[in-house]
Amino acid sequence: MTQSFLSDLLTRVAAVGRVISPSADRTPLADLCHALVTGRGEATSLALARTILDRIKRLDAAEKKAFLLELQNRFGPDPKAVEKALAAYRDAPNGVALRALNRATEPVSQELIRRLNRAPGGTADLVALRADLLTMLKDAPELEALDADFRHLFTSWFNRGFLELRQIDWSTSAEVLEKIIAYEAVHEIRGWEDLRRRVAAPDRRLYAFFHPALRGDPLIFVEVALTAAIPGAIGGILAEERPHMAPEDATTAVFYSISNCQEGLRGISFGNFLIKQVVEELRREFETLTTFVTLSPVPGLRRWAESAAAKKDGGLTPAQKTLVANLATGAGTPTDPALAGLAARYLTDPDDSAGRVARDPVARFHLGNGARLERIHLGADDSPRGMSASWGVMVNYLYDLATIERNHEAFATRGEIIASPAVQKLARAGAK
Amino acid sequence: MTQSFLSDLLTRVAAVGRVISPSADRTPLADLCHALVTGRGEATSLALARTILDRIKRLDAAEKKAFLLELQNRFGPDPKAVEKALAAYRDAPNGVALRALNRATEPVSQELIRRLNRAPGGTADLVALRADLLTMLKDAPELEALDADFRHLFTSWFNRGFLELRQIDWSTSAEVLEKIIAYEAVHEIRGWEDLRRRVAAPDRRLYAFFHPALRGDPLIFVEVALTAAIPGAIGGILAEERPHMAPEDATTAVFYSISNCQEGLRGISFGNFLIKQVVEELRREFETLTTFVTLSPVPGLRRWAESAAAKKDGGLTPAQKTLVANLATGAGTPTDPALAGLAARYLTDPDDSAGRVARDPVARFHLGNGARLERIHLGADDSPRGMSASWGVMVNYLYDLATIERNHEAFATRGEIIASPAVQKLARAGAK
Amino acid sequence: MTQSFLSDLLTRVAAVGRVISPSADRTPLADLCHALVTGRGEATSLALARTILDRIKRLDAAEKKAFLLELQNRFGPDPKAVEKALAAYRDAPNGVALRALNRATEPVSQELIRRLNRAPGGTADLVALRADLLTMLKDAPELEALDADFRHLFTSWFNRGFLELRQIDWSTSAEVLEKIIAYEAVHEIRGWEDLRRRVAAPDRRLYAFFHPALRGDPLIFVEVALTAAIPGAIGGILAEERPHMAPEDATTAVFYSISNCQEGLRGISFGNFLIKQVVEELRREFETLTTFVTLSPVPGLRRWAESAAAKKDGGLTPAQKTLVANLATGAGTPTDPALAGLAARYLTDPDDSAGRVARDPVARFHLGNGARLERIHLGADDSPRGMSASWGVMVNYLYDLATIERNHEAFATRGEIIASPAVQKLARAGAK
Amino acid sequence: MTQSFLSDLLTRVAAVGRVISPSADRTPLADLCHALVTGRGEATSLALARTILDRIKRLDAAEKKAFLLELQNRFGPDPKAVEKALAAYRDAPNGVALRALNRATEPVSQELIRRLNRAPGGTADLVALRADLLTMLKDAPELEALDADFRHLFTSWFNRGFLELRQIDWSTSAEVLEKIIAYEAVHEIRGWEDLRRRVAAPDRRLYAFFHPALRGDPLIFVEVALTAAIPGAIGGILAEERPHMAPEDATTAVFYSISNCQEGLRGISFGNFLIKQVVEELRREFETLTTFVTLSPVPGLRRWAESAAAKKDGGLTPAQKTLVANLATGAGTPTDPALAGLAARYLTDPDDSAGRVARDPVARFHLGNGARLERIHLGADDSPRGMSASWGVMVNYLYDLATIERNHEAFATRGEIIASPAVQKLARAGAK
Repeated sequence: MTQSFLSDLLTRVAAVGRVISPSADRTPLADLCHALVTGRGEATSLALARTILDRIKRLDAAEKKAFLLELQNRFGPDPKAVEKALAAYRDAPNGVALRALNRATEPVSQELIRRLNRAPGGTADLVALRADLLTMLKDAPELEALDADFRHLFTSWFNRGFLELRQIDWSTSAEVLEKIIAYEAVHEIRGWEDLRRRVAAPDRRLYAFFHPALRGDPLIFVEVALTAAIPGAIGGILAEERPHMAPEDATTAVFYSISNCQEGLRGISFGNFLIKQVVEELRREFETLTTFVTLSPVPGLRRWAESAAAKKDGGLTPAQKTLVANLATGAGTPTDPALAGLAARYLTDPDDSAGRVARDPVARFHLGNGARLERIHLGADDSPRGMSASWGVMVNYLYDLATIERNHEAFATRGEIIASPAVQKLARAGAK
Repeated sequence: MTQSFLSDLLTRVAAVGRVISPSADRTPLADLCHALVTGRGEATSLALARTILDRIKRLDAAEKKAFLLELQNRFGPDPKAVEKALAAYRDAPNGVALRALNRATEPVSQELIRRLNRAPGGTADLVALRADLLTMLKDAPELEALDADFRHLFTSWFNRGFLELRQIDWSTSAEVLEKIIAYEAVHEIRGWEDLRRRVAAPDRRLYAFFHPALRGDPLIFVEVALTAAIPGAIGGILAEERPHMAPEDATTAVFYSISNCQEGLRGISFGNFLIKQVVEELRREFETLTTFVTLSPVPGLRRWAESAAAKKDGGLTPAQKTLVANLATGAGTPTDPALAGLAARYLTDPDDSAGRVARDPVARFHLGNGARLERIHLGADDSPRGMSASWGVMVNYLYDLATIERNHEAFATRGEIIASPAVQKLARAGAK
Repeated sequence: MTQSFLSDLLTRVAAVGRVISPSADRTPLADLCHALVTGRGEATSLALARTILDRIKRLDAAEKKAFLLELQNRFGPDPKAVEKALAAYRDAPNGVALRALNRATEPVSQELIRRLNRAPGGTADLVALRADLLTMLKDAPELEALDADFRHLFTSWFNRGFLELRQIDWSTSAEVLEKIIAYEAVHEIRGWEDLRRRVAAPDRRLYAFFHPALRGDPLIFVEVALTAAIPGAIGGILAEERPHMAPEDATTAVFYSISNCQEGLRGISFGNFLIKQVVEELRREFETLTTFVTLSPVPGLRRWAESAAAKKDGGLTPAQKTLVANLATGAGTPTDPALAGLAARYLTDPDDSAGRVARDPVARFHLGNGARLERIHLGADDSPRGMSASWGVMVNYLYDLATIERNHEAFATRGEIIASPAVQKLARAGAK
Repeated sequence: MTQSFLSDLLTRVAAVGRVISPSADRTPLADLCHALVTGRGEATSLALARTILDRIKRLDAAEKKAFLLELQNRFGPDPKAVEKALAAYRDAPNGVALRALNRATEPVSQELIRRLNRAPGGTADLVALRADLLTMLKDAPELEALDADFRHLFTSWFNRGFLELRQIDWSTSAEVLEKIIAYEAVHEIRGWEDLRRRVAAPDRRLYAFFHPALRGDPLIFVEVALTAAIPGAIGGILAEERPHMAPEDATTAVFYSISNCQEGLRGISFGNFLIKQVVEELRREFETLTTFVTLSPVPGLRRWAESAAAKKDGGLTPAQKTLVANLATGAGTPTDPALAGLAARYLTDPDDSAGRVARDPVARFHLGNGARLERIHLGADDSPRGMSASWGVMVNYLYDLATIERNHEAFATRGEIIASPAVQKLARAGAK
């Protein structure tokens, strides 16, 4: 890439506005990135950023991977600046030198991503690009460093302070609603009528977080049922025909589905903020609400139990091994009370093998938020997915504002899994 | 600070919602910051962040300075992590190790600022806090490192991709309009009637950038007059009584005032993006517009000329020294054609002494954007401010989309100051 | 009804706000109406109006009819006032006396309807009430006088000046969109995916008129396809899979479906205003559009032809009689060119028997708007409805702004049916 | 006017869109009106209506009066249709014939006004035209019949059901706010700072009614102060510097100014609906509010007292005559307790001479709404206007929802003026 060539190119980019010039199309993408990040072409930086993002979209999988690798390798920290900053720190190892070292070691790729973000629609394109990167990570773990750049910037950009909570209902645009249908990951929404039951019934609510740069595209949403009691099965909540209740009469808000929408934002956590703000909203609107609780799947129960049953020292009791075997052959039923004990053990025994407090990912999320494992329900989800993941077992996690902080503390610092006495009793019984 | 004390404290914070508990009020602020950034208290992190920001607001100047210093010193990078990352880098000085070193050297203060930002209204409070910090920097230059943290984060948060351009007119809320009145820094807006002349006349426009987290508070705005020719004086543009022109008949858009609104965002640059997007908007709306030009002050002319005249080798010609002397005594007049030559030299001679290309800050801004110094006008601003800064001299910078990129390039890489032939001729004449 | 009883009742209505008091529930509806219209109870007139409207909604069909008859008979003009005004007019038959007579003869029911309209949601309830009334008219033609009161007020309230044109697209709320699905009367919208094809494709538009008092409930809408030529069949327009065209390349706007939404507004005409304003909107947005044309059904063709064929002097030629007979038995096909001639005669021969200019209701609408009957297409709509109404024949009406006024004039005053030369030729051929 | 001439004219109007053709400009206005109302020119009726309204605006006062007279005389009811309907009624004097007579006697001018209203901006122009008409009525009382047409239609169009209540605050557009400044008729708003005190202080509210066809132009508004007690003087409420109170602590809502905005809507009453809806809004927002009261001027007190004092049998006591005389010479003071008795008599004695229940127009408005005359305050308004109208006397009218209906009833049917015991006592004392 000669400087004059690119300079001419950019001049043309500027002159034609957003239209991509043919020569911009022939220049290697990484050269365009270099032009963007070295600040040549300030004047046209938006058009150039747009051009690069459009080019990236048209790459096939192999080309995209090659491009991302080049990005990571070519746009790392500047070695000379690093050496200089290291020398200065060696001479005077103080805070100022450390911060200078921090600046010197910042990969150029971060500045590049920031400049790409300036383009109209840039944020959405970058989130999509990271989604692609995440799918490549398994085969190309060396891209982890570049992913860290994305994660670092996205954590900053998608700060809770920049998110907006919106209630989604029947006055919401079709544009947004069809995204909700598409993104629901836990209990599939079967078309517009099913959606209407979840957002327009008087005793249903749906709340989502949005980011201003992703207008109309939610980040995460939670579905809420207002009920008279803690529910023990998902069927009644999703039923097509069911009596509605006046929301003013409800005592309980049930978070029965939480869906992350943006694959490219994996690892950037909003869920705990969402639940807590929705609790606040609901308390303000309905003073009669006293109980805030989830109705959650137990996605890892069956796999764990079958694996433990197959091992000699998997920790199951002989009765539990029999239970698992019978469930597999159909000789046992998923309403066998012993299954509750097995689930209680799965959820409350620490997962020493992996060095994690709790085995179940959903449990880790809610316990980490300070919720308490409240109840275990058999036959609560007879959908194929529910049966295959947990023989239909579902659980409630209770969000009790008075203890949420103490629970979180106990879980985070001392690895305590907070469960109700009833669940503890089940777990003890299951261990015998 | 004992862990249990703070834990209790935070529990109470959680229970009372946003109300600050009395004990939160007695805990040292930096301890609260420590609690926030170490992630104890996830559950209540919004309430805690809000508490800290409210406490900061109530500090007096000395307390605030002490707090900021403590912030910088106590919340630097973690020394142990830095040592470990350095050792790893020494062992294997590759890209992965470098990126790890970068993460290890990130000051904890950055994460703290990110967490404070989660609170409702956090962004505005942090921008205000940095404004305070900037006023302290002169007497406490050691705070520069902390300021770098703010600058780093604000650059990321106030990325062009997150800004929204809005036209301000008479249908805008009083809330926003009164901020425009307050923020106008170049040509004072004298009350609501004057404002109306600038936003509601058919041949006037006002555009501003907004950030979603600072709803209703503009970041920067530009005032535009639509005219039939390049204007040579500000008086006619600001006149109370003047004929309006139909905007469809205008050929020229004059950017006659650009005001940055947020002191706390100093050094985060939006101006070039603003001007370029407004040019795009105006071209789309009015196809007859062919010329985009500023009418700009020359803020440093008089100070430079008087200082140069006082020096033996200040570089002025004898005639120019006499001119400056006469202007000081009143024997000379600011319409003396020789003043134009003096101004041309001031604006186009490189500023070798300070290692800068151009002496004048406004010139540096527009030339850096790729504009061309087009014309110099005597007697163009007879306000006290205009007379005291530049003996009433104003200039036009021309934004010509066909050459903007080449101009920027020449200025940024080769230090060329791009001026029209007429201005060049004036400069040559002034140098004789 | 004693005055004191009602007075007490109303006091209670006032005290409880909008809740209907038990005694209000027992009072005869017409007595409540009397209380409302005699102005006793100004203070509570909104609550009383709301009460009455709610009561009306709960009436069954027979009760409602009885109520409407009582309304008409009890709330006619005041006989005494009429006699007085008549006497005055006899004494001095001038304009002032005439206007006084007009006021005296105004039925009290009109004032009653106006007062009912004051209640929140009153307009929607009154439109629904008239829809009920219209269904009763056939069996109870004596209600025609009351219907005239509704029509008189609705014509005033739904004046074109109060209507708002809105483009409906994929950013519109689900609430409005589902009404569009429900109201489409010409070419059924088969669910949300079909709707999306009609409002979100780049070469499709849907515009509707709304009234501020019926927020979210359209009055009438028109669906538009942007095409490269005048289409000859509906199938290609409604096809699930079809190539889209860039709207900037279109030359022709096709109004392929117009649906009235509010049965209760029958006879209040908006269609001509809608088409003309949409033509204006489209011309403003797309300068390349030169042709504005409908693709319309011919709803009365088959019934007319079969009836005429059955009569001795129905006016059909022997060949046409044979054609009709063969179409009935399946021996003929709807692509027989002779069918075009038959359709041309149906559409262009004056309908002397009924004293109407044109036989076909859709023809009357568009010709009355000043459009010209442009083309006749065979096999243009093979849906069951299209086949049963017109053997699949459809036609284009052309809206040509240069002749629209002259055409309207000719149709309205001289009963001329304006058709293109091609259609005229077909009609002449068909008559032989 | 020949039909063909106008037809051609209208064709041209249609062809040029909204531009007025030169010939339309030369045609007599009333001929254009005739063309509009006879329905020739449906196709172009919006453009023609717009043309007529634009022409009317350019008429001078004499021309406008001549035009309005022609309108009234030429566009009365159709005599032939009237005769026919009269004959039918004579033959069969039933309800159907009466309603037909009503339709036949409707002046054509009403249909004309309805058609003018179809034009964009038509409603605003018609309201302005009636304002002109009202100013002419004094000198041309014969226009009263045409005014009745306007009043009839406006009453229908500005039905309560079509009005929208909006709170005006500092987030309202400057466009609307400057109208509020201009329209305030009771206690002048002295610029934007004064306005801000009235709409943006935490213990102040301003509510207005809007009509959809007059976007941004209020019909009527009321200013409210939230206080801890019923106020006895306007000064404290309007003071520039005053302590604010938290609205949650207020017990009393004071309606201290009500302004009608549209002169052309005189006689179309919204005030009672406004006050009652604002009471509802405030009760919903602030549960602590228990008292809803006005602080009102007594505009007719002084003129009445001086006139009564000058008459032999004006009904004043000798002491009251002396009081009035002393107030005139300055020998008396407006804080003389006897003035309260005089005011009480003015406000509570029936106005037998004019056949009206209450003398004071403001009293008639609030008593008619069902409010109670609660208190009389001396020295409550020392502005020039207040002194000249009532020697500074102001009063409170109390809106008590529990008695509002009974009060209204007593006032409307039995002519009882409802006053508090304290005011009644003052009146009795004043009569001695």
